Amino acid sequence: MAELPSIASDMAPQESKGPPADHIRSVFAAYAERQSAGDVEGILALFAEEAVVRDPANAPSHHGKAALRSFFEAGFAASGGANDMKLEGAVRIAGNQAAAAFIVRTLRSRPVYRVETLDVMTFDDAGLITEMVAYWGPDNFTRED
Amino acid sequence: MAELPSIASDMAPQESKGPPADHIRSVFAAYAERQSAGDVEGILALFAEEAVVRDPANAPSHHGKAALRSFFEAGFAASGGANDMKLEGAVRIAGNQAAAAFIVRTLRSRPVYRVETLDVMTFDDAGLITEMVAYWGPDNFTRED
Repeated sequence: MAELPSIASDMAPQESKGPPADHIRSVFAAYAERQSAGDVEGILALFAEEAVVRDPANAPSHHGKAALRSFFEAGFAASGGANDMKLEGAVRIAGNQAAAAFIVRTLRSRPVYRVETLDVMTFDDAGLITEMVAYWGPDNFTRED
Repeated sequence: MAELPSIASDMAPQESKGPPADHIRSVFAAYAERQSAGDVEGILALFAEEAVVRDPANAPSHHGKAALRSFFEAGFAASGGANDMKLEGAVRIAGNQAAAAFIVRTLRSRPVYRVETLDVMTFDDAGLITEMVAYWGPDNFTRED
């Protein structure tokens, strides 16, 4: 941002490390686009080699690209293909950590469900995701008729 | 929820531990209301005795109610009083962990800023917050004119 408001510098930490905000926002957008396209390799390209994913947050974690490939492939298989995934609101950025809400629609299922999800991502200096934790559960499913 | 869709049970973990979803949603709502009211004691009543807060996520953590009281009091002092805080979208619930986006408006500052924030909370069995991590930074400030 061009002008840091004084209230922001009063409230936020002085030093902000991490990839540029534009890059972080582009990763969140690309993640949703590639999820919507069922593009497993494209999704994996956003992650560091030793990345850890918990999706949802109360499930076991998956560690490393081979495990992530299996996890994302299993996800697409479970839902019968790709779901539509769109950002809901802005990406919130705190240095090299960021979070955003999403709306997923299970277009391959009958009935279709609207699912509220939210991902927290941590980035390395190269701009790759080192950790992703997803927040959603059964209470976030709404049937669309 | 009354009926768990089969796609949810396929996608989500079988066992969902944690306080009831209604309680978790009520805590997120109460947090925003008490922030908006500048009600430090009301905010603290939502937290467990040994709770840890990082707000924002890339700042040092505050541990225990005495430290949290100082932290919240300093926050209200820095912004000249309470800011308006409202949920943006639904609370996402994964067992005893949950997350939601907020919009804060710095009503006491001139100019007023709109700030996009997002909190991840972890709950104990009594329904109190044991950990809260907030995601926001300078890029989430927009001047309102």
